[in-house]
Amino acid sequence: MNAPDPRLSINQATIKHADLATALRVTADAGIHAIGLWREPVNEVGLDLAAQMLADSGLRFTTHCRGGFFTLPEGRERIAALDDNRRAIEETATLAAAGAEGSTAVLVLVAGGLPAGSRDLIGARERVRDAIGTLATDAEAAGVTLAIEPLHPMYASDRAVVSTLGQALDIAADFAPEVVGAAVDTFHIWWDPQVLEQIARAGREGRIATYQVCDWKTPLAADPLLSRHYPGDGVIDFGSLTRAVVDAGYDRDIEVEIFHADVWADAPENVVRRTAEAFAAAVSPHLP
Amino acid sequence: MNAPDPRLSINQATIKHADLATALRVTADAGIHAIGLWREPVNEVGLDLAAQMLADSGLRFTTHCRGGFFTLPEGRERIAALDDNRRAIEETATLAAAGAEGSTAVLVLVAGGLPAGSRDLIGARERVRDAIGTLATDAEAAGVTLAIEPLHPMYASDRAVVSTLGQALDIAADFAPEVVGAAVDTFHIWWDPQVLEQIARAGREGRIATYQVCDWKTPLAADPLLSRHYPGDGVIDFGSLTRAVVDAGYDRDIEVEIFHADVWADAPENVVRRTAEAFAAAVSPHLP
Repeated sequence: MNAPDPRLSINQATIKHADLATALRVTADAGIHAIGLWREPVNEVGLDLAAQMLADSGLRFTTHCRGGFFTLPEGRERIAALDDNRRAIEETATLAAAGAEGSTAVLVLVAGGLPAGSRDLIGARERVRDAIGTLATDAEAAGVTLAIEPLHPMYASDRAVVSTLGQALDIAADFAPEVVGAAVDTFHIWWDPQVLEQIARAGREGRIATYQVCDWKTPLAADPLLSRHYPGDGVIDFGSLTRAVVDAGYDRDIEVEIFHADVWADAPENVVRRTAEAFAAAVSPHLP
Repeated sequence: MNAPDPRLSINQATIKHADLATALRVTADAGIHAIGLWREPVNEVGLDLAAQMLADSGLRFTTHCRGGFFTLPEGRERIAALDDNRRAIEETATLAAAGAEGSTAVLVLVAGGLPAGSRDLIGARERVRDAIGTLATDAEAAGVTLAIEPLHPMYASDRAVVSTLGQALDIAADFAPEVVGAAVDTFHIWWDPQVLEQIARAGREGRIATYQVCDWKTPLAADPLLSRHYPGDGVIDFGSLTRAVVDAGYDRDIEVEIFHADVWADAPENVVRRTAEAFAAAVSPHLP
């Protein structure tokens, strides 16, 4: 096959069962230049060693996944969640500094769902705003961009009360764009009648912190979290979305992040190769 | 138990396996005043007999479900779908005339998903607008209101490319409000950050054609279509949504429409009784 697109980044969740060493190795061996990491495999080896391994890999670092859990009511759990987000900010800064030139210090934030027993969606959304306000100072000090990720509305009750790109941008608007931006993930926002205008707005406001791609296909998996497919295997029009992101000025790496039982069961070498092929076919033609 | 709320209407899908005679009987026997019907059980007995049975029941008729399938490309199938919608418009007018005083001639429209093999969401949405333009003349002549129903975005690819109330209102804006309105269904729109402002807008524009309630709870059913619950069994805040609908000027009947395997397996008498109880607890306190 041809060399992978130089802007392709493998989000580590796509090869979920690979440990950090394996993830870095298969990604670099495939000729891919960038990777997005998850906290659990990083912390499995420890941050210092993880940073060294990343540096040795020669890969760019694109995002750290993930912070969030901002909807908890006041109390001990919320304080612990905020402290954990501060550690995630530090990890992000350390890894971005260890990655190859062109790495970006972006921490993806998944807001969290409704607290158990609560129906107060508006209140939960307010607490997300409050939490980001609390963490913005830490992020700015560390040179990290917090990327609010709107999740598909089917996750609004149990995973993320931030459901649209417009809503994420409304929250981000209180902060400097280098401190708080948004994650633009095709799976979560492809359906939105306002998606193109909100991508353009995100560009104007300087807030596209990361662009992530995977595909949507029905029937959904029994666990709807695992319904993410290789680009091109579903119904998302990567042309219009990718052109909108390009036109909005985004010129950095593009992650493929897939959660799917079959993908996770495959060998990571195969998954990385298939990801590069899918990206080349579905996304690359729409890049400058 | 107390008498059911006088504004409660049983959508026939809630007692899916009851034929028309049974649906009318159990609804009236429970002291409920109104019912929304589905085309299949009506056509099973024939429209004339269905209208007579409805008249004999003494129930108000609230909506007819459903028209739609508007996303098909030009061709024979699309022409057949539009013809079928014209029949649905006639059925709606006939049934509304046969129902008790206060009946409403409202045909609920489910737009349809992406045609097989298509990724052109924007084009599909344009075809929905075109189809409604074609049918508006028929609806106006028959005195029927077409209610565009935004469906939850998790159905955007396979059931309805109309995903938000704002989008439904944008489509409806080309037509007179008594001809084209929107269905406000809590299950589909509860998550929308713009839901309260769009309900207020729908009221200002005179376009709340029907208000339907049921609840959202995770985990979703393996078939996500069947994830609708009795009001109060999930996380939807019926207070804020119902008050918004009331404040928007909606003063007609309110349907409960539940798709759920357990509800469908229960005896229709039980389902109707539980529906009345759930409505009284979750919705009635927020009505004037």
